[in-house]
Amino acid sequence: MGSVSFWKKAGLCCIPLIATSAILWAQMPSHVPIPKDNPQTREKIELGKQLFFDPRLSVTGTVSCNSCHNVMSNGTDNRPVSLGAHGKPGDRNAPTVFNAAFRSVQFWDGRAASLEDQAKGPPMNPVEMAMPSEQMIEERIGSIPGYRREFEKVFGGSQPVTFDNIAKAIASFERTLITPGSPYDRYMAGDKAALSPEAQRGLKLFESTGCTACHSGPMFSGPTQPMGTGFYMKFPLFSDNPYVKQYNLAEDLGRYQVTHQEQDQHMFVVPSLRNVEVTAPYFHNGSVKTLDEAVRVMARTQLNKTLDEKDVQDMVAFLDSLTGEFPVITLPRLPETPNTTILER
Amino acid sequence: MGSVSFWKKAGLCCIPLIATSAILWAQMPSHVPIPKDNPQTREKIELGKQLFFDPRLSVTGTVSCNSCHNVMSNGTDNRPVSLGAHGKPGDRNAPTVFNAAFRSVQFWDGRAASLEDQAKGPPMNPVEMAMPSEQMIEERIGSIPGYRREFEKVFGGSQPVTFDNIAKAIASFERTLITPGSPYDRYMAGDKAALSPEAQRGLKLFESTGCTACHSGPMFSGPTQPMGTGFYMKFPLFSDNPYVKQYNLAEDLGRYQVTHQEQDQHMFVVPSLRNVEVTAPYFHNGSVKTLDEAVRVMARTQLNKTLDEKDVQDMVAFLDSLTGEFPVITLPRLPETPNTTILER
Repeated sequence: MGSVSFWKKAGLCCIPLIATSAILWAQMPSHVPIPKDNPQTREKIELGKQLFFDPRLSVTGTVSCNSCHNVMSNGTDNRPVSLGAHGKPGDRNAPTVFNAAFRSVQFWDGRAASLEDQAKGPPMNPVEMAMPSEQMIEERIGSIPGYRREFEKVFGGSQPVTFDNIAKAIASFERTLITPGSPYDRYMAGDKAALSPEAQRGLKLFESTGCTACHSGPMFSGPTQPMGTGFYMKFPLFSDNPYVKQYNLAEDLGRYQVTHQEQDQHMFVVPSLRNVEVTAPYFHNGSVKTLDEAVRVMARTQLNKTLDEKDVQDMVAFLDSLTGEFPVITLPRLPETPNTTILER
Repeated sequence: MGSVSFWKKAGLCCIPLIATSAILWAQMPSHVPIPKDNPQTREKIELGKQLFFDPRLSVTGTVSCNSCHNVMSNGTDNRPVSLGAHGKPGDRNAPTVFNAAFRSVQFWDGRAASLEDQAKGPPMNPVEMAMPSEQMIEERIGSIPGYRREFEKVFGGSQPVTFDNIAKAIASFERTLITPGSPYDRYMAGDKAALSPEAQRGLKLFESTGCTACHSGPMFSGPTQPMGTGFYMKFPLFSDNPYVKQYNLAEDLGRYQVTHQEQDQHMFVVPSLRNVEVTAPYFHNGSVKTLDEAVRVMARTQLNKTLDEKDVQDMVAFLDSLTGEFPVITLPRLPETPNTTILER
């Protein structure tokens, strides 16, 4: 199938017109977008790091942002779906927090327009961190003397420990979680030895097969969108193959669950392929365990193609070249609650 | 009650004879004991740090050593009892990992003679990390290429990824988790301004009340014992008070559960008071939320004394002076499983 019939099927015929080679292939940007109303400061990033690692943002005091988006690993937990504060599984695979700052929308269904919006989701999600109310979050964090002092310093005002400010600080820290320096980026910068011959074949195959129809641009997540505007694709696009049943790919209605508009059924944000080597398992439901199988599934469900095994291996070699360098992070000290605890049985 | 009747009641009449002032009060030692068969090396400590933070040591991939012994906080989780991999609560309060290297035995009932022995407990505990067998732990860790390389480098041999070596590496890392430099240590080193007048009154009161009968020595955990030999005390010693029922202090049979010998009923290792300010809640069952209440309970259940509120506050001021300086730790990078995951649903 050529790219025209793909786009026709996908109902997005205009996209290929702008998907020129310059947009298809690009290095990782050197700077993340920063919203005007949440400028980065050293103190805010440090506060955000504390909050990101603080399990007291969950009702049980056992689940932090880092539990499911583990920055010691790949910004995810490598589980199909995460387990929340009460040990219950979530619905969708935890996306990596690394390079999330470059995403124009957050969550698989794009329901958060910014990292700030996203950060407010898990604490209030009854399966994830399961806090009963925004007020309880503010009260709990505000009851910790060290946090109160830091929020005052970072945000000022008489009541700085707000859910909004908690989210702003976490988002600021997350904007430091980027992974430049991948072999692919070095290759694009002129170091032709950075990619193995297999990876170079995989790169060409990635374009000729049609993967770049969606996975283009510096993040391999489609044409760069204005912040808050997602780039979505139907998944699975072709359902007449055994993978759909085998991996339960058609159960989740995707963005429809947010908009309740028919055209959003099975629409998902196109995920970045940066670090895809180390973020197994794959897809919105985490149902596919290995990257080679994910490549086979994608070729068949999105492009109606069946790749031979050599092509799959070359494609994986190319995708492995998108793994960047992870930042060195010093552990935060979490502020204390002297002589008492705020966590009940 | 004077100290003689206390020791008579406790059945340990010989102890006061050696509990001279020199033993009662001491600074934190500058070096931790290192077992001959597990010398510290930089690479082993680094490997141990990775393992300490790696949730893949639990069956679900969600609970690491750090989950319950959080070194970003106080080496504990500040919960009454911890929640394990399947969300189930444990039986006893998680002791802090900070300064555990100085403890002559590990666990509340002293059932592990070393940090190495202790490290093998939680992974196999069905409520904690819930791994089904030592073999599965070895296979899982051994299936991660980065770990395999590091174990080869650190331990050598053809099959270096053993449960024993996992425990040795973790113990080596834990021996770096010490907190010197407390106000008390500075005071003992001659800086008389390091303790407030309240804390100095508390210090005197701590001895005159009889607390030093057990909480003596550099770690405030009793006379220094040879490694593997615990210093135990009956708790509660005096049961004719409302605290015992209120905080359910007499339910747990303590060391008896390990030895099944009658004299070990309700015997527990005397815990260190280092960092007690920040390790709430208190006691083997984590039933007491605040340090002031813990002081009241201890005076009554162990020394049959009722302190007035001023004394309680002074004692707390002294105990707060035992909080040391926590080490700055760089986050480890956890070795990857490229293009796949080892965690199933």
